[in-house]
Order: sequence, then C-alpha cells, then structure tokens
Amino acid sequence: MINVGVIGASGYAGVELLRILDGHSQVNLIVATSAKENGRVVADLFPGLRNKELVFRPHDSEQVFDCELVFFATPNATAMHQVPKLLEAGVKVVDLSADFRLKDLTEWAFWYGQEHACPELLNEAIYGLPEVNRAEIRNARLVANPGCYPTAIQLGFLPLLENDIINPSLLIADAKSGVSGAGRKASLATQYCKVNDSFKAYSVGGHRHLPEIKQGLNKICSSRFELVFVPHLAPMSRGIHATLYATLAIPEVDLQAVFEKRYKNEPFVNILAAGSHPETHNVRGGNCCQLAVHRPQDGDTVVVLAVEDNLVKGAAGQAIQNMNIMFGFEEITGLTASAVYP
Amino acid sequence: MINVGVIGASGYAGVELLRILDGHSQVNLIVATSAKENGRVVADLFPGLRNKELVFRPHDSEQVFDCELVFFATPNATAMHQVPKLLEAGVKVVDLSADFRLKDLTEWAFWYGQEHACPELLNEAIYGLPEVNRAEIRNARLVANPGCYPTAIQLGFLPLLENDIINPSLLIADAKSGVSGAGRKASLATQYCKVNDSFKAYSVGGHRHLPEIKQGLNKICSSRFELVFVPHLAPMSRGIHATLYATLAIPEVDLQAVFEKRYKNEPFVNILAAGSHPETHNVRGGNCCQLAVHRPQDGDTVVVLAVEDNLVKGAAGQAIQNMNIMFGFEEITGLTASAVYP
Amino acid sequence: MINVGVIGASGYAGVELLRILDGHSQVNLIVATSAKENGRVVADLFPGLRNKELVFRPHDSEQVFDCELVFFATPNATAMHQVPKLLEAGVKVVDLSADFRLKDLTEWAFWYGQEHACPELLNEAIYGLPEVNRAEIRNARLVANPGCYPTAIQLGFLPLLENDIINPSLLIADAKSGVSGAGRKASLATQYCKVNDSFKAYSVGGHRHLPEIKQGLNKICSSRFELVFVPHLAPMSRGIHATLYATLAIPEVDLQAVFEKRYKNEPFVNILAAGSHPETHNVRGGNCCQLAVHRPQDGDTVVVLAVEDNLVKGAAGQAIQNMNIMFGFEEITGLTASAVYP
Amino acid sequence: MINVGVIGASGYAGVELLRILDGHSQVNLIVATSAKENGRVVADLFPGLRNKELVFRPHDSEQVFDCELVFFATPNATAMHQVPKLLEAGVKVVDLSADFRLKDLTEWAFWYGQEHACPELLNEAIYGLPEVNRAEIRNARLVANPGCYPTAIQLGFLPLLENDIINPSLLIADAKSGVSGAGRKASLATQYCKVNDSFKAYSVGGHRHLPEIKQGLNKICSSRFELVFVPHLAPMSRGIHATLYATLAIPEVDLQAVFEKRYKNEPFVNILAAGSHPETHNVRGGNCCQLAVHRPQDGDTVVVLAVEDNLVKGAAGQAIQNMNIMFGFEEITGLTASAVYP
Repeated sequence: MINVGVIGASGYAGVELLRILDGHSQVNLIVATSAKENGRVVADLFPGLRNKELVFRPHDSEQVFDCELVFFATPNATAMHQVPKLLEAGVKVVDLSADFRLKDLTEWAFWYGQEHACPELLNEAIYGLPEVNRAEIRNARLVANPGCYPTAIQLGFLPLLENDIINPSLLIADAKSGVSGAGRKASLATQYCKVNDSFKAYSVGGHRHLPEIKQGLNKICSSRFELVFVPHLAPMSRGIHATLYATLAIPEVDLQAVFEKRYKNEPFVNILAAGSHPETHNVRGGNCCQLAVHRPQDGDTVVVLAVEDNLVKGAAGQAIQNMNIMFGFEEITGLTASAVYP
Repeated sequence: MINVGVIGASGYAGVELLRILDGHSQVNLIVATSAKENGRVVADLFPGLRNKELVFRPHDSEQVFDCELVFFATPNATAMHQVPKLLEAGVKVVDLSADFRLKDLTEWAFWYGQEHACPELLNEAIYGLPEVNRAEIRNARLVANPGCYPTAIQLGFLPLLENDIINPSLLIADAKSGVSGAGRKASLATQYCKVNDSFKAYSVGGHRHLPEIKQGLNKICSSRFELVFVPHLAPMSRGIHATLYATLAIPEVDLQAVFEKRYKNEPFVNILAAGSHPETHNVRGGNCCQLAVHRPQDGDTVVVLAVEDNLVKGAAGQAIQNMNIMFGFEEITGLTASAVYP
Repeated sequence: MINVGVIGASGYAGVELLRILDGHSQVNLIVATSAKENGRVVADLFPGLRNKELVFRPHDSEQVFDCELVFFATPNATAMHQVPKLLEAGVKVVDLSADFRLKDLTEWAFWYGQEHACPELLNEAIYGLPEVNRAEIRNARLVANPGCYPTAIQLGFLPLLENDIINPSLLIADAKSGVSGAGRKASLATQYCKVNDSFKAYSVGGHRHLPEIKQGLNKICSSRFELVFVPHLAPMSRGIHATLYATLAIPEVDLQAVFEKRYKNEPFVNILAAGSHPETHNVRGGNCCQLAVHRPQDGDTVVVLAVEDNLVKGAAGQAIQNMNIMFGFEEITGLTASAVYP
Repeated sequence: MINVGVIGASGYAGVELLRILDGHSQVNLIVATSAKENGRVVADLFPGLRNKELVFRPHDSEQVFDCELVFFATPNATAMHQVPKLLEAGVKVVDLSADFRLKDLTEWAFWYGQEHACPELLNEAIYGLPEVNRAEIRNARLVANPGCYPTAIQLGFLPLLENDIINPSLLIADAKSGVSGAGRKASLATQYCKVNDSFKAYSVGGHRHLPEIKQGLNKICSSRFELVFVPHLAPMSRGIHATLYATLAIPEVDLQAVFEKRYKNEPFVNILAAGSHPETHNVRGGNCCQLAVHRPQDGDTVVVLAVEDNLVKGAAGQAIQNMNIMFGFEEITGLTASAVYP
C-alpha cells in the first residue's frame, strides 16, 4: 500500500487517474491538486466520481511530499518546475505531460517554445512504454509517460522494425483521435458544434508527437527513416485509431505470427485475428491496445490498425501500469476492467 | 463464491452483466448463453471484454443448473418458459426482462400480447427495487428486475409520495433515453443516421413501462392518481434522464431535506446539492442514480431530475445489486466503479 | 430587390442568415459585420459558404445605412445601442436578440441585468411571430424576432389557449435544445466532451425565455396561468423538441381538427397525422415547425410535440420570413428548402 | 424544363435527389419509385421534404417513360436490368449505382458477384466525373455516376498524376466516411450504438471502390502504379475525408499553384489556402469538394486532404451536375446551396 498524489487533477487525464486509482487495491490517494480549482470538492466538478470527499489542493501543497509517487497530469512545461524537488525528497514521479519525453534539448525547446527548466533530468527519465522499457521502468525514479499517439503508433510499428520486415525509408501514420486528446479547456476548436458530425486533419505541417515517435522508433531502427504523421480529429470523446503503412522489405513473412509472438506476454496488447478491424470502442475505458495487421491484395504494403483509449493506455492507464512496475505490484493491478460498450 | 450464469448474453444488458461480473469478487461466471450465437467465442462478438475464453452456449445448456443464480437478459416472454424448471432445481433467478414485473395477469397479457406461461409465479416474484423492497429481495428465489425508465421514475417520485407532499392527481414523467434502451438488434428505427443529431418522443400513446411504474407507485400512494409518461429517444448510447413534475400539496416543505433523508443510507442514490442539474454522463457505466429537486419560481410545481445509466442501475447493475442482497454479499460488491467521463 | 445587412454575422444565427440570404432572390447582402472578425474574409471563418468574397466589417460600418433592412444577430444588449440611429435613418430592423422582445422594462432589466438603452422603442417593436402578428409585422419598422424556445412553445400552446380547450392553471413546457442554442463561443459548458453522449436539464430555476413565453401566451389567455418551463441540453448541433403538457378543460374535443384548422394557411407550420412523433431532423435546415397532438390513454392531459430548427424557424429563418412580410415579398421566398436528412 | 424520375427514391441517395431536385428550376419531378414503399406518401417516410404530395411508385411504373431523364439510386445490380429499355425509349439515364462504372466485365463480375446483365452498354456508358469527362458527358445517353470514395480520391490525385509530379509506384488513400455511405438499411453494423463514439477501418482486404479508382487513375497515368485504399467508418452521418499520400518525383514544385490551376474553372472544386485543413462540415449538404495540399517537413511526401459530402458531390449532387451538363443547363443550376453549418 503506497500513498500517491495527482498533480493537475482537473483535466481529462487527471480525472481519469482519479477514476482508475479509486479501484486500485495497493494505493491510497492522499492528494489531488489543481491550479484553478483549489479548495473545491472534486466530486462537485466531476460528479461521476465515487469518492465524494476529495478536495482539490494547490500544486504546491505539502501533502505531495507525503507520497511515495506523484503523477503529473499538468499542461506541458509545468512538471519540470516541480519535479526536481520531489525527486530530491524521495518521491517518485510519473509525468503524463511531455516534459521529460524527449532526450534532445533543442528538439524540446523547438516544439514546446521555451527552454527546459531541468535539462539535467532528461537523461535519467525513463520513457514509460512498458512493452519496450519494462526493465528500466522497474528501477526508475522518474518516468516520462508516452503521448497518446506515440503509444499506439510505436506499438504498431515495433514488430515490423524490430524484425527488419519493412523498408524504413517511408513510414506513414494516419491517426485519428477523439476530442479529449485536446484536453479540458474552453476552446472554439473543440466546441460541440464545431466537432460534431465532422472530421478533419490537423497539424499536417508538424505535430509535437512527431519527434517523440521518431525518437522511439530510432531506438529500434538504426537506418535513417522518414515518418509522415497526420493526426485527425474524429467526432467522439475518446479513442485513437492509428492506421499505419509501410513497405515490406521481404516478400515472404507471416505477419500475423510476428505480431502474436512479439506481444505474447504483454497483458495490455491484444493481437486480433487475421482480417480483423479493431474499433475504438473495443478499448473504451480499458488499458488495452488492440492491433490487427493486413496486407491488402497481397501487395508490398503492410497496413497495421491500432486502437487504444487515449486517456487510458494513451495516458492514465499506462501511467498506472508504470507505477505498478516501479513498485513491484502485479502489472495489471487496477487495470483489469473490460471496455465499456456500448 | 457462487456460480452464476447469464442467459441471453449477446444483448446490451447481457454483455453489461458480463462486464460487471468480471470484476465481482464473489462470483464465478460459468455459463453465458445466446439463442443466435451458440458456439461463438464471446470476445469475438464483444472484443472489449477482458475474458477471451468464454463461449456462448444455447439457452438450454445443462450448465445453467450448476449455477446458484442465473440472470435472464433475454427478450420479453422468454424467461417465463425456463424459470419454473430452474427454481425447481434450486437455482435462484434475477430476470431483467419484463416477464415477472407485473402482478396483474390481464395487464401483462395486454402489454405483451400473449398469455403468461407461468402465472403461478407472478405473486412469488419480488420486484427488485432495493430502495423499496430490500427485505423481500433478501429472501427471494425469483427477482423481477425493474425496467430502466421505472427505476429512475420511481426513485424520483418516492420521497414525494411517501411523505404525502404532492397532490397525486397528476404526475408527469418526461423521460429521455439513450439508444441502447431499444436493445441490440438490426432496426431501421435505431440506425445511426436515423438517430444521430436528432431527438424525438415515442410511444406517447402508451409504453409498456407505464403499468410497471403505476404498480410501483400504487404500493406507496393509496389515492387514485393519473400518470402521464412520455418517453423520448436522445442521440446517445447510454443514459436516462427523467424530468418529473408534480403539484405540491403543502406549501411549506424542505424538499431537499426530504430527499436527503429518504436516501441517506442508500449506496446507489445520490442527492445532488440544491440547484443542481445532473447529467447522464455522471453515471455512465456506474450503478448510481442521481437526483436533484427543484421548485421553479417558488411556485406550486416540484420538478425532480433523475439520471441513471439505463444499462447499469436501469438493468445489469441493479440485477447484480439484487444478487448481492440475495446472497448476503456486501451490497456494493462489484459495483463501486466511478462513471466513465468524458 | 433590396439591400440588407447582417450585424453580428460571426455567430451561429448570423452565419445562418448569410447561408439563407444567399439563396434569396429579392435581396442583395451588402454588409456583414462582426465585433471580433473585422477585416477577415467571411468564408475563411465559415468555409462552407458559397460566397467567397464577403469581408467582415465593424458593427459601425457606414454601409449599414445603405440597407433597406438590417438584421441584428448580436449578443443581447447590443442592438439596443444601435437601433435608434438606424430607424431614424429609415433603415428597418429585425433584431434576433432579446433586446426588444419584452414589453415590461422591469422584467427586461431583471433578466438581462442592466437598464434598457432605448425604452421608448419597446412599445413600437412588433413581436415577430407571423402566425400571431402577421398584420402588425407588415407595417413594422422594428421587429423583435422571437427566441427559439418561445417560438416552438407558443406555436404548440396557441390552438389550445385560443380555443379555451385547456385549463390554464398549469402549463408545462419540457423543452430540449441542440447545442447551437448556446451560441458560438468558447465555453467549458459546451465543449464537445462535456456534451457528447450526455443529457441534462439546465436553468430549471429560471430561464430568460420564460417571461417572453408568458408575455406571448398572456396576449391570448386572459386568465392567470402558471407556466413551468424546463430547458434541456441534448447532444446534437441543431434542433428543438418541446413536449408540452396541459389539462383539458372540456372532455370532448377533436384536438387534431383544432390544430389543423388553426394552421391551415400557415406555410411554415405542419400538423402531422394523429399519432405521429416528429423528429428534429425533419426540420434540420428548414423553416418549418412541425406539431403533433396526443391525448395519452384518453385521459385529461393533452400532450403537444413541437419540433423546429432553433437556427431557422427559431432564429434566422423566421427573421427572413418577417422581412418577407415587411417588404411584401412572397412569404416563403428563400425559405423553401427541404430539411437535410440524414 | 424537363421531366425527370428517380428510381429507388427511398434510400439516402434517392431522398437526397428529391431534396435537391425540389429546388432545381429546370426540372419537373414526375415519378419517384421504391421497391418496398410502393403506394406510400414519400413525405410520410421522409417528413422533412417540402413536397407533401409525391407518392412512391413501383420501379416498373410506366411514368418513367414520360421522363427525359431518369436517375437510378437503386442497389447495385438493379439498374442494369432496366436501363436498356429506357435508353431504347429515348430516356437518358444517370445511374448512381455501380452497374456501369467499370469497363472490365471480369472485374465487375468479381466485385459484384454475378454476371452483368447488359455488357453491351458498358462501353457506351460515360463515367460521370465532370472534372475529367465533361465533354463526353454532354453527349451521353447513359452516365455512370462515380462512387463517393472514388470522387474524392480521384479529384485529389488528378493534379499530381496529370503533371507527373509524383512517383506512381505507391499511392495511399486513407479515407473516412460518414455512416450514410452504407446506405439506408437495417443492419447491426450501422446501428447507432455500434457506431457512436467509435471509429474503425473496414474492408482493408479489398473494397469495391478500389477497381473504380484504379480505372480512373489509369486513364491519366500510363505507368503501372500500386494503390492502397483503406476506408474507415467515422461516427457522423455525412461526409468523406480522404487523406492521400504520394511520393514526389520532382523536388521543386509549387503544389499549391498546380492544384489551383487545375481546378480554376471548376465550379465545385475549391482549393483551400496553403496550410488549410478542410473539415467535412464545410461541405455538408453542398456539392463542393474541398482540397488542401501539404508537404510535411518539406519532405518527399505530398499529402492531399479532400472533403466532400458523400451524398451530394459523392452521389446525388454530382448526378444532378451531370444532368445539367447533359441537357445544357447552367452547370450549377440547383446546386448553389451553401453548406449547412453547424
């Protein structure tokens, strides 16, 4: 049993942490903070939470130091100001924002528009994709929880790249996200009437998750590759569907077997039967990523379909999975819920 | 630890039972049946379920007799043919269909268009609204699980009627339901394009839940009353919002206190703060019914707002709550999940 | 052929005026203004408009004085500052905001939180519900276009009140609106994830359209009546569905005939066949209000179902209908489009 | 002024023809047929239509021979049985189904699972994409109206292929469609609860529109090319968004200028400003296809974004555009409506 806190609990990833942690048998949630909602009863803002007692505290509440682990679900460029002190005090951190994901300081400064506040921690931070870095996560003090798109896209490309099955010269990730990916804030772009019954691409010129995905794939694939990543906004609250395209480097390969073997022991990656088309509601509210692999018309192109809940495997659920690994809990603790359908 | 079965597991209420039972610490689900999907892996039809092993059996599978309790989530007029044999064999039953809800045979035959197959059980069957019948449920062999609309509407009117606060001559229930209330079947009326971005009333002339609600309210209110019940279809998958109207019989009354007192010890009824407006997503995936009571312009009309998830408190969740009571489990076992929002 | 302008063209009612006026054979749209978007190409903000040349001007653009008629689609308490000068210059006005709807200054000040800027015009302003005030509209300089809820609710109650069919002691209007009714602005309350797949009541304690509806019904019904009006937010972009309840004062009455007779010559009110349930998509994008009248279980309660597109018959379409009347155009000019379905 | 008929008017494309034709100044709609709804008032099924008099006739109604032109909006493999007789009688035909789109009989038989009933007409039939075949359409008796996906995808690739800008070895079309693309029929796959708040790919192994797109692109591009086409189902009623990927063959090219030049005189193709992201609601209910062209990170990949309303430019609107060309009407007649937003 450990004490944990959630810093930035009034956003979508924050409240999702609260929801999932409430059913986790090994943690006491002792503090939830919000920059704007300090003093408000959490269940007043989120009346669907079972816990009706919790009250928002300020980010600098002293209670965060009574935690064994703290989750940051704050906007980018927030955690980096508070993490050093916490680590120093012996509090472990899983950061759901982008502050510790990139190793390259210049890249980080370019995409996030400012200097990094604690560059010395970038190297120590472990990128929290358990399917790749489980061993390092186990011993980490600071875990950089992956972005929502990067999780689905990396899990989809990994088996292909690790086994040198594809020609890495061009990878295409056409990804579609529900609206919660944009965060909980008043914005014209995510107003109901703007999004409902419509579909669009965005940030085709360049999205912040691009360098993160590239960095992740680079660890596996030594050759130079081009990645084209086009995110889209779909009229739904939750869910990411990534459609991945690559050119096969070897004509004879049992793609289904490759994927099944790669993820055989992974509790949160499901390989669907050959010919399947995963739907995002298969994973709504649950921590699974579902993958299906296709080779249309037996041609040279492999198409991988990946779905996840952007707020669970793409954020809060993966963060709790990382915590479970860091503290030696069974990895699936608190994360065994089936998806909510319909 | 008891063995349970779900008869009719390929509908929305059925799969919801599977989802919730999967997280219930006191039950082994040993059989799930389907008239149409016999032999198919359940997770093939519902890929969001964590359990990937379960296979649909036919309704008359012998395994149902190995259960301590069986849930029926079958279409109306199905359970009544199978329940007598199960009871005889010592298997308890919670029926989510309408077969055992009405005490009046003639009413039942009128609304369901046929003769009842086991009228002798109608009197034994306990109406499974724990907030009213908890004691009888405890000792029941056969529980008739309430309909989705009747649950929300009765919970909203009860405190007013029990305390003789309103004039029962006219009660109005204007209720709005998500589309899953219509069940899982191919139908033009519930096609996506028919329902999306639209809103309509239906069955204004008479809906099958009307006699059920009347029967329930009649138990409390001895005076003759008129109930007008108008159901509507809202473009959403889950959720019921009932807006209830009645005329106050006594001018001075603390409505908020009346509601809070009535449900003080109820684990699954939340009274929201005065002035609140509950939203159906407050209860999406959870077993709570949330109520708020208003008196617009301090006039003579009381307005009660009630929300529930039609598939949980309005079906599968309440059925499991009833099972918990019948078997002496803690009443909230398996039902403590927070709502999934957004 | 007349010159018209739209003041406040960057909101939902404003752009709807632009859309419909574009197909109107008797008008030249010569100016569209916006407080915030001055100088921007209108089609850059609303790329679905056929007109790609129009540029937003400021509200005080001199071009508004070159118009024969100006529509105001501005936030409340804006038009009242500009209308006197326009009328003086001989420009007619249809105001879609609430500035000139209420005759009672005190009521207006109470609901809109400030003093009225030109009280002397309140009496001159004609309430633009053609089904009631067609003759006065014909000669009006200033028309106060009705609110969206008030249009549907008044059209539904009118035949009952005019014919003394109901007991006016209690009228209930349970109304459901799409999200565009809240206007085009960045707001947490109308974020996609807040609204999607959810349903709620709001302003049960009192909504600004209440005094407007009361004032309208008072013109017809001399007796004192109580009106309870409960608005709800439905997860859809457009559409209002009002469910109206009243108690019959006379037991024998052919309700269907009463409604059909009342609206026989109205081009934009359709009485559906007895037993019908209008859906809001029946009127999406069109100027019709559809009504159906029911008497559940042949009891004392009459239930009227009314649907309209809140942005057309509930705003821009009705405004253009008023303009057509004011200028002697055929009343349906520009308003003959069928609804867009699905 | 010509007489026209719609055969198969009870589907989504059929009712869309009725809606648009109602506002077309050059046609009298004299007959609408339906296999299932014969004898029913059309407005009873589609209460949003302005025309309340029209009655469904059977497909073999004699009135179709009184038409100058007949539209077929029937299921595939229906029109081919009736078209020869109509042509013989001097009635022109625009077929919105797939019966006359493919020139290769074997391909047609493979994808549509049967022998073609009038192979002799395949060569005569003109593929009705006005942006490519306007001259041939002008003199056609029989026009095969393009599929919804093929329209958007061809319009997006055309400027690139015609100008030899891309390497045709691999073209990728990742396309997303609203649910109306599946037609109006009772089906589990398109039930509201199945589709709502979810997203999926389908037919990755092969979709019937693939040979149609290939045939169209082959006319322009003599080299052998591979096309990978992955359709997806998005939770919305209308709209197609195609995201197209290709590799540039020449490094220096002004893509924006190429697109603007290609479609300069096209009334229904809009090239958005560089850097734009078209949304499907930009074209909801209107006949435009909007395109934007991107070159992410100035790399070798060109990304084209194309949106259209699948029922208008992707079906009924384009069919009417073809009719306008065939009869020498102004091409935009009846098709000048702005999109309906929100």
